[in-house]
Amino acid sequence: MGTGIGKMILTKVGIEIVGALDKAPSKLGKDLGQILNVDNMGIIVSDDAETLIKETKADIVILTTNSFVKSVYPAIKTITENGKNCITIAEEMTYPFAVEKELSKEMDRIAKENNVTILGTGVNPGFVLDTLIITLSSSCRNVASIRAERINDLSPYGPTIMRTQGVGLTIEEFEAGIENGSIVGHIGFAQSIPMISKALGLEYDEITQTLEPIVSNTHRETPCVKVKPGMVAGCEHRAVATKNGKQIITLEHLLQIHPECEAVETGDYIYIKGDSDLHLSIKPETPGGIGTIAIAVNMIPQVIASRAGLKTMMDLPIPHNIENSFAEQVNYYKG
Amino acid sequence: MGTGIGKMILTKVGIEIVGALDKAPSKLGKDLGQILNVDNMGIIVSDDAETLIKETKADIVILTTNSFVKSVYPAIKTITENGKNCITIAEEMTYPFAVEKELSKEMDRIAKENNVTILGTGVNPGFVLDTLIITLSSSCRNVASIRAERINDLSPYGPTIMRTQGVGLTIEEFEAGIENGSIVGHIGFAQSIPMISKALGLEYDEITQTLEPIVSNTHRETPCVKVKPGMVAGCEHRAVATKNGKQIITLEHLLQIHPECEAVETGDYIYIKGDSDLHLSIKPETPGGIGTIAIAVNMIPQVIASRAGLKTMMDLPIPHNIENSFAEQVNYYKG
Repeated sequence: MGTGIGKMILTKVGIEIVGALDKAPSKLGKDLGQILNVDNMGIIVSDDAETLIKETKADIVILTTNSFVKSVYPAIKTITENGKNCITIAEEMTYPFAVEKELSKEMDRIAKENNVTILGTGVNPGFVLDTLIITLSSSCRNVASIRAERINDLSPYGPTIMRTQGVGLTIEEFEAGIENGSIVGHIGFAQSIPMISKALGLEYDEITQTLEPIVSNTHRETPCVKVKPGMVAGCEHRAVATKNGKQIITLEHLLQIHPECEAVETGDYIYIKGDSDLHLSIKPETPGGIGTIAIAVNMIPQVIASRAGLKTMMDLPIPHNIENSFAEQVNYYKG
Repeated sequence: MGTGIGKMILTKVGIEIVGALDKAPSKLGKDLGQILNVDNMGIIVSDDAETLIKETKADIVILTTNSFVKSVYPAIKTITENGKNCITIAEEMTYPFAVEKELSKEMDRIAKENNVTILGTGVNPGFVLDTLIITLSSSCRNVASIRAERINDLSPYGPTIMRTQGVGLTIEEFEAGIENGSIVGHIGFAQSIPMISKALGLEYDEITQTLEPIVSNTHRETPCVKVKPGMVAGCEHRAVATKNGKQIITLEHLLQIHPECEAVETGDYIYIKGDSDLHLSIKPETPGGIGTIAIAVNMIPQVIASRAGLKTMMDLPIPHNIENSFAEQVNYYKG
């Protein structure tokens, strides 16, 4: 993701990459240009975060290392204590308050003390199953319940994703993977639901999550996995927030390889029930990798211009693509 | 619309109506409760804006009188000079800078001087063909062009809308109506296009608008109009922003009675072309009247908490429905 973000920034104006951090031996010590497939940039990939962040003049650091608040917290601390804003695609950071209350308070405190802003974002969590739902709800006078579904295609992904989503396993192996925690499904429901709830003031008592195998009836294959009929092609991850036993917010994510083998159409679907019902679809689905890269980069101006603190997508001006100068965009939001 | 907004506010907590203005003889001098179909509220509908706004303690005034900047400017001046925030559903106010540069500067100045905020919003312009497009674009790394279409059903509307959209006319009468300005089509393209362009930094040279009759092949009828085959059932209003002759932003609004008579499905459709294409649909369309009422009321907290000035939907935190206390929401945004 870091490489994708770097490549995107190279195509933009009014924004410049001034440093790069990566521990991977394939990148460490190389000129960033080699990694981004351009001429040498005079930026050597470092693994010394502390020094690089301290000694480099930068407005913002984009952090793409890990999914969890606890894991990215030390890096966010270093970034913000050195007076840099931070955007991270760590899934839990899109709404960290629910899972890590104390660390969230601490990050907010450090950000305010250093007059910078922290934002967690991405395509999901961060956009499809939270920001977009929240935005759509604005044309409702009242909302009784929300159901949304994201059906995507895992085929382009590598072996790590196949493993964490259980692709290519038998049903027994899948069940064992759930048991031992190696199959995680989608990370983000515990952020998207609280964010929707907070934005709309839509209360719930508890969230129940289920993770079921999608058992294939057909042969499906990618360069890194083979799925025979009767084996697992992916997983169906569902989170339901209930109030007095009634479903208030239901989010579903169906992740599998080659959904077209069984005539499953990929897409993002939102159903809002209220005094007027709304049905939104995006077909095919908002792309996962590209979408996350895009939103992380596109939110830079809003984050730099924001009041200091730990923010979420619901706190900042509406997100959008940027075709003009990023510097101009920052000046616009600073007013 | 004012009545609808009043009724919606009555169902909400942490917000209270403290005054009502209307010149219509059917409302003037009556208790507002009678108009909103509830018990007397102790609020008498006045037509003396100056006095009421001056002497009433209020955080915000919602203005629902007219479509044009020039027409609502005097009311906005009175409201803001008396230290009240203002939300208006005047279509041109959703992005007034393009059509009324000087008045926009003046409103921004007055708002800042009095530390209040002005926002123009509504379902369209204000949401479907601008805010939603802008928001969706955030998951694109780049955007080459945008096409969006709103197809709605005019059947529930009264004689004024039928007249301004040319419903029930012959083709000749429709053409004469375009000529003499009595048929206006959709008001909002001259706001939505500049807003999208400003948000994304997507440049264009000029906007061309066309307004064509939708000629009916079937008999269509509402309580206030009859359309025989060969007559006009509504209009197709299109605005195209071009750059060097290439279509950059194309917005279309098809307004007609009983579109189902000719198997036309109502809906909102957005197509973004870039390095990844996105197709969004909302079927049936986001409701017009309810949607405008909802967005105007739902934006109250963001407007009250905003920095002072003349703002648009692209400047404020993402819009959303509100099920909890409006006062709590204001406190949240004030941080």
